[in-house]
Amino acid sequence: MSQAQNWYKADLREFRFLLFEQFHLEELLGKEPFADWGPDEVKMVLDECYRYATEVVGPLNGLGDAAGCRLEDGQVKTLEEFKGAWNALYEQGWRVLAVPEELGGQGAPTTLQAIAEEMMSGANPAFMMYPGLTNGAADLIGHHGTPEQIATWAKPMFAGKIAGTMCLSEPHAGSDVGSAKTSATPVGDDVYSIKGTKCWISAGDHELADNVAHLVLARIEGAEPGTKGLSLFIVPKKRLDGTPNDVTVAGIEHKMGLNASATCTLVFGDNDACHGYLVGGIAHQGMRQMFTMMNYARIGVGIQGLAVAGAAYLNALDYAKERKQGSSVDDWKDPNAPRVAIIQHPDVRRMLLDMKSRVEGIRALVVKLTMHQDRATALAGQNDESAAYHKGQVELLTPLVKAYASDQAYRVAETAIQVHGGSGYVRDFPVEQAARDSKVFSIYEGTNHIQALDLVGRKLGQGGGKHAQDFFADVAKLVGAHQAHPVLGKAVGQLAKAQEAVGGSAFQLLGWFKGGEMHKVPLNANLFLQMMSELAVGWLLLEGAVIAHEAQAKLDAGHPDHAFYEGKKAAALYYANNVLPNVVGSAKVLQLGDQSPLDIPLESFATV
Amino acid sequence: MSQAQNWYKADLREFRFLLFEQFHLEELLGKEPFADWGPDEVKMVLDECYRYATEVVGPLNGLGDAAGCRLEDGQVKTLEEFKGAWNALYEQGWRVLAVPEELGGQGAPTTLQAIAEEMMSGANPAFMMYPGLTNGAADLIGHHGTPEQIATWAKPMFAGKIAGTMCLSEPHAGSDVGSAKTSATPVGDDVYSIKGTKCWISAGDHELADNVAHLVLARIEGAEPGTKGLSLFIVPKKRLDGTPNDVTVAGIEHKMGLNASATCTLVFGDNDACHGYLVGGIAHQGMRQMFTMMNYARIGVGIQGLAVAGAAYLNALDYAKERKQGSSVDDWKDPNAPRVAIIQHPDVRRMLLDMKSRVEGIRALVVKLTMHQDRATALAGQNDESAAYHKGQVELLTPLVKAYASDQAYRVAETAIQVHGGSGYVRDFPVEQAARDSKVFSIYEGTNHIQALDLVGRKLGQGGGKHAQDFFADVAKLVGAHQAHPVLGKAVGQLAKAQEAVGGSAFQLLGWFKGGEMHKVPLNANLFLQMMSELAVGWLLLEGAVIAHEAQAKLDAGHPDHAFYEGKKAAALYYANNVLPNVVGSAKVLQLGDQSPLDIPLESFATV
Repeated sequence: MSQAQNWYKADLREFRFLLFEQFHLEELLGKEPFADWGPDEVKMVLDECYRYATEVVGPLNGLGDAAGCRLEDGQVKTLEEFKGAWNALYEQGWRVLAVPEELGGQGAPTTLQAIAEEMMSGANPAFMMYPGLTNGAADLIGHHGTPEQIATWAKPMFAGKIAGTMCLSEPHAGSDVGSAKTSATPVGDDVYSIKGTKCWISAGDHELADNVAHLVLARIEGAEPGTKGLSLFIVPKKRLDGTPNDVTVAGIEHKMGLNASATCTLVFGDNDACHGYLVGGIAHQGMRQMFTMMNYARIGVGIQGLAVAGAAYLNALDYAKERKQGSSVDDWKDPNAPRVAIIQHPDVRRMLLDMKSRVEGIRALVVKLTMHQDRATALAGQNDESAAYHKGQVELLTPLVKAYASDQAYRVAETAIQVHGGSGYVRDFPVEQAARDSKVFSIYEGTNHIQALDLVGRKLGQGGGKHAQDFFADVAKLVGAHQAHPVLGKAVGQLAKAQEAVGGSAFQLLGWFKGGEMHKVPLNANLFLQMMSELAVGWLLLEGAVIAHEAQAKLDAGHPDHAFYEGKKAAALYYANNVLPNVVGSAKVLQLGDQSPLDIPLESFATV
Repeated sequence: MSQAQNWYKADLREFRFLLFEQFHLEELLGKEPFADWGPDEVKMVLDECYRYATEVVGPLNGLGDAAGCRLEDGQVKTLEEFKGAWNALYEQGWRVLAVPEELGGQGAPTTLQAIAEEMMSGANPAFMMYPGLTNGAADLIGHHGTPEQIATWAKPMFAGKIAGTMCLSEPHAGSDVGSAKTSATPVGDDVYSIKGTKCWISAGDHELADNVAHLVLARIEGAEPGTKGLSLFIVPKKRLDGTPNDVTVAGIEHKMGLNASATCTLVFGDNDACHGYLVGGIAHQGMRQMFTMMNYARIGVGIQGLAVAGAAYLNALDYAKERKQGSSVDDWKDPNAPRVAIIQHPDVRRMLLDMKSRVEGIRALVVKLTMHQDRATALAGQNDESAAYHKGQVELLTPLVKAYASDQAYRVAETAIQVHGGSGYVRDFPVEQAARDSKVFSIYEGTNHIQALDLVGRKLGQGGGKHAQDFFADVAKLVGAHQAHPVLGKAVGQLAKAQEAVGGSAFQLLGWFKGGEMHKVPLNANLFLQMMSELAVGWLLLEGAVIAHEAQAKLDAGHPDHAFYEGKKAAALYYANNVLPNVVGSAKVLQLGDQSPLDIPLESFATV
């Protein structure tokens, strides 16, 4: 795509449904800490940020994909038009909606930021990598930095004056962060000399801001091996006096997608002149500090997946409404029957509803998570027990959001391509880019297997299993209340079966863990994460459908919301009848306890 | 990838297992019509064609992807090195293994050609589009052309002197071929003036051969509407006297993948000077004639899917053996534990065995199909009933091979990327190209939904349902013989359940068809095709495993084949325990008869 064209679309009515009808953001508005925010302000942000997404960054999405990035004299060059988009982003304030006011932000709920992120990332996922990484790094410094570091780095980062990155991976150490070799040698006053190579650094270099502050995990000489010996440093591209800080861009990756986002290999201290500033002035806390950013980033990747999937769905919907091909199945024997739009064909409708249910279900899961976060923030210091419940749910749902949304994004993009037929395979339409862009989401910020291990090895048992119990109790509430629902009752029955299946599988995992069959836990972790995600998505779709059913009953059939509510019900019914039964099937697979992947000898995979 | 590098690998031991241990090609060798072929000749072809794949076309795969195609002065230019690969291909004879000797071929079984195709397409799927389309077109003319057309066109095409294409789609008519508008006006002696635009023409133009002969579906003036009124014409790029034939390349597509294959829009007769020669001199038989080529092409697409998936699997396997990351799960608490190759991690082994089982199962299905074809050929005129059985199975299995192999290719490539981690997302490794290349397989030569309709609307009921009954009887034979197998018995039990589920679902479809719920048939056709494919793949994997088990029992543990046979068993066990149970789950979904995609009003999909 060599001409600027915006393909992005969002259904703002759907956003308002989630915010105000299903998850009741209004309960948190108009009081601390969101005292300045009311429903009108929230809706205005949706409208205006949508305008930014469709008018400013959306038209640059195909252009950026075609142009990619290049390295010139050691400096990464991005699409020229990105600079204007960056400036507009920070001028309009879309990056700091949920940032505290004392850091230059607007103090809005994170839920609003999440929806804004979805729109902006859906319109241009590659461009949004630059401000995305910057916010993550600024957040981390805001949480863990010294007051001076916050003033020097975090505030200008939130203002878009300095960009940020996170530097974990090394050529030999990706998922295995703990084996990082980058070293830090004290040179006085919390200043260290940094030496090492970091790779896969998203937004690793560019000229959108005046400077780039890298957050680098390194080992102070003599520190213990593994993740516990790592410390975190702020390592700027240029020192505060404007001189270079011996950070070299050794190369950029040529990727399948997200082409406009520079993925760099960075060399620190090649001339022994790279200064790093210990975050918070505290050593050996690097992983703990980094996890603040990682959790934020993982939810962010889930939102990226949702964003790309949501855009692909609406593009496919438009195409299916416009493209005429074939006659109605009712006229299949008549060659003179009129041609119809392909949305009339059952299989196309199936693909569209499949995408809609996945996209809207994942969106509900994302908003559920961010609302837990906002409620935890609002309740902090007021009702600690309740706040702990909400925080626990954030912990529990984070790996689900990251992994399920990213896996499903690729699948939804695949379906969107199929709806387009041959047109889906060419660059004149946006859906093949959606597939290419989305494939990395299952890999970065912790592969989806790392998420699955986080879920089964950590989150399920966290707080003595309380978070998981609370989650199941929440699902059970819906089942208990609506099993006899006149329209949705049978679908709720599918949810009940899925819940039973997930619960049983959790005990199965625990049994293996305690019974010396440890290897079966990672072997089945991905499947379990998928099952639990499907349960969560099915639950929230059905919850939304119950609400939609009640709201619809009060409307005339001609009311514009009538059709909208019907769509919410259809998505839930589809998912309950076509996806939730597979959760039960997956539980049976898990129960079989097949261990052929563990048993197969290495030399039996192939003879070459 | 800007340097020539071969990434292709094949496991020739696996090919020999299928040919000689599972499907017994040797029974057909040494007698008519394959009298010149013995096992040694077959094995030599495997070795030598593998050398062509890895040494000649393999190194051009990444280069072609990076270079793409371009249009210069109305002429498509491909990668310069393709010309040498084309010449070597025809000199070495790999294109005409299964072509009859009277057409310049070598009269080998199609099964051997299929395996050769897998190797060549696996090494370079984009390049192989050019000879692939050429063979398809030559075959068609060989079947339906006049003796003069066979001599003038088909023979030089089999020799690589003239290339070929198939021109069905028009801008408004893709899957709906019958609405094609290209016209043919008689100008005398079976010569027609052709006028119209065809799009999505694979290998639509190039300079690898001296001329390109397009097979064009067009409507002779006054012919009836729909597919029945279409006729087929040979429309060369240049006339026999070497002058241009008014065929213009209006544009080439910029695609997600298969970049080195030129996908063209062709305009015929823009200056009213485009001659076409009626195939066989018979009008209004275009679709019937084209289907000769389409069936060939559909099996070919299945082989493409298998080829790309097979290569992706072996690349992921190599990467997993070499890449060190993390420690063994047994040492998960020890940061000083030695790093291990990632193939030691349970989830990586799961992904590898998942790919292996899908690839080897689909390969078995392809060889099963081509062996049916070869047996039908060998039995023709000898035993008509038996020949009819084999032909019926070719008919029935063709949509399975095309659709399942193509869908799974994209999934296997996705898994191969995930095994590679970040490296899978960059162009330095071959697996992201595998994903991009393979995505079109589910679209062209009849979308996979067209395949599903072919299966449920045509093939299941063909011959009064006999082909389907024969298929189920074949599966039942394995179940009956091995349900009590000491190692594989339980897995065979999963197969039995899957068979019951597929059978029940077939009756369900029939019930809808006859009971006035016609729309539910296309709505569930794709799911049914997937279920039946999984049944077929599971069946053939288990059949192979039974054979491997018996063969292995006769060997010392140190014999090199011991590990090979163990791998065959592991793949079958994995598939039976992890995929076949989902067939039962899918049958339950189908039985629910959810019709939410049919019920949802158009305006309920979204409010934008």
